Amino acid sequence: MDLKAYLARKREQVEAALATFMLQPDGLLAGHIESMRYSLFAGGKRIRPVLCLAVSEALHVDPTPYLPLACSLECIHTYSLIHDDLPAMDNDDLRRGKPTNHKVFGEAAAILAGDSLLTFAFELLAAPGPVGSLSSAERLRIIALIARAIGPLGMVGGQSLDIESEGKPISFETLQYLHSCKTGALITAAVQTGAVIGRADETRFAALTTYGRQIGLAFQIVDDLLNVEGTAEQLGKAVGSDARHDKATYPSFFGVEKTREMAKAAVAGAVEALADFDDQAEPLRELARYIYYRKR
Amino acid sequence: MDLKAYLARKREQVEAALATFMLQPDGLLAGHIESMRYSLFAGGKRIRPVLCLAVSEALHVDPTPYLPLACSLECIHTYSLIHDDLPAMDNDDLRRGKPTNHKVFGEAAAILAGDSLLTFAFELLAAPGPVGSLSSAERLRIIALIARAIGPLGMVGGQSLDIESEGKPISFETLQYLHSCKTGALITAAVQTGAVIGRADETRFAALTTYGRQIGLAFQIVDDLLNVEGTAEQLGKAVGSDARHDKATYPSFFGVEKTREMAKAAVAGAVEALADFDDQAEPLRELARYIYYRKR
Repeated sequence: MDLKAYLARKREQVEAALATFMLQPDGLLAGHIESMRYSLFAGGKRIRPVLCLAVSEALHVDPTPYLPLACSLECIHTYSLIHDDLPAMDNDDLRRGKPTNHKVFGEAAAILAGDSLLTFAFELLAAPGPVGSLSSAERLRIIALIARAIGPLGMVGGQSLDIESEGKPISFETLQYLHSCKTGALITAAVQTGAVIGRADETRFAALTTYGRQIGLAFQIVDDLLNVEGTAEQLGKAVGSDARHDKATYPSFFGVEKTREMAKAAVAGAVEALADFDDQAEPLRELARYIYYRKR
Repeated sequence: MDLKAYLARKREQVEAALATFMLQPDGLLAGHIESMRYSLFAGGKRIRPVLCLAVSEALHVDPTPYLPLACSLECIHTYSLIHDDLPAMDNDDLRRGKPTNHKVFGEAAAILAGDSLLTFAFELLAAPGPVGSLSSAERLRIIALIARAIGPLGMVGGQSLDIESEGKPISFETLQYLHSCKTGALITAAVQTGAVIGRADETRFAALTTYGRQIGLAFQIVDDLLNVEGTAEQLGKAVGSDARHDKATYPSFFGVEKTREMAKAAVAGAVEALADFDDQAEPLRELARYIYYRKR
């Protein structure tokens, strides 16, 4: 299959949906909404919503009516980037090759743009009116899955641990936990959202959860690798910024060669988890492989 | 009726519930959870959860099984205070007479404590398992009401407008809109949450919404008055800090005397909205009056 064409198609679907569902800058709050839109439409790869849609398709369910749920995942991801880039956090000036939100709108506005994107995600998830054929109970389950994944025991907890660990020696176990919270949890939640939409039974839900965890892991390991190997152009941010901040990374524990093996193993684990799925799951398998080969 | 005793009783119920439902500091994330708890248990008046419980009682429904929903309102309120106090925002050193979150834990940790409290609120709202006799559809409606109230077109939008307006001349209409978003929206959502719990019909839901809007307004006007008239001890923060920041307030538009009349009118409007409720709504009426007389 042609993964690039598939991703481009799905991404286009997500872009159109984001343009539809996102607030327009208008009236007294135009400036605030503009700051939300700046980062939301800064050209992300939309991996999380695309994953959600692809999982639903792997379960033979047309994801079109569920696009607002997929969009909520991108709002959450964008909020996390805005807050991570803040001067008090990673203090990054560039994101996806463009000035970070706080560089353009100021620190206060950037904090609030993040707060609003996070909250708006829950507006999308709970919006009045039907969402495809999902029951209210299923929608509630999705909200619970996502909220849990991105809260104190998930994404924010991971970021907190990351900040606390800066410049300190940490164990590999701490690094693993940190990554599974900071990056893995939202990716897994995106997959699980697709699984609820596609009405996966318990066995398939568990298999997809494993798939999500493994690609989340692969994603983070490859990110660490790219930070060592990549060019600024590929990353859209300064190369070696992790090393500059004394951050523990997979290569700092295992060296580049061993880290590459670990990334490949995670990808293999993800593909393996989908053994019982038919060829509708081919994009998911290709996507897992693509994580390893992106930008190389 | 003895409002003080009623409020003390309800507040105690909320404190116990917060202690039950809030995460315990444990393991790698202990520091992060400690920073959330610091502000959550800093001795707030718990007005929003108490309002939610009191509305449910006014509708003859025992609110005990719905305490997690009431607690979510306090998590949201606490998050908003932590972010408002940040150096990039109002830059306050004191809150409720104690050092603000970022003074104790640092700026990065404070931003993340706020992010986690906001997200944890949605965990509470969507948690697996039944909540009293609420249907999933009713729970979804509550999440939608709250998310909308505190997002870009609600609380965060109001805070954004507040920051943008600092030191600039703004119209009274802008001030009104700002207040209705920043303070009014969450108070109204607290009342509406109680209304859904109490299964208010459309007429009563509308009446309670009016009640919520009017006490929200009264609350803000009195806050402006206290900032001019009060003592640091009463406020738990520096007196005159609004004037120091060149913020537009009700007294700066109308003077203290006229502003007092406006506060009284808002309280009267709130009490009026409850005309068709029986004496189970007496705490709500007293609470409206109390807003005007608090700390005087």
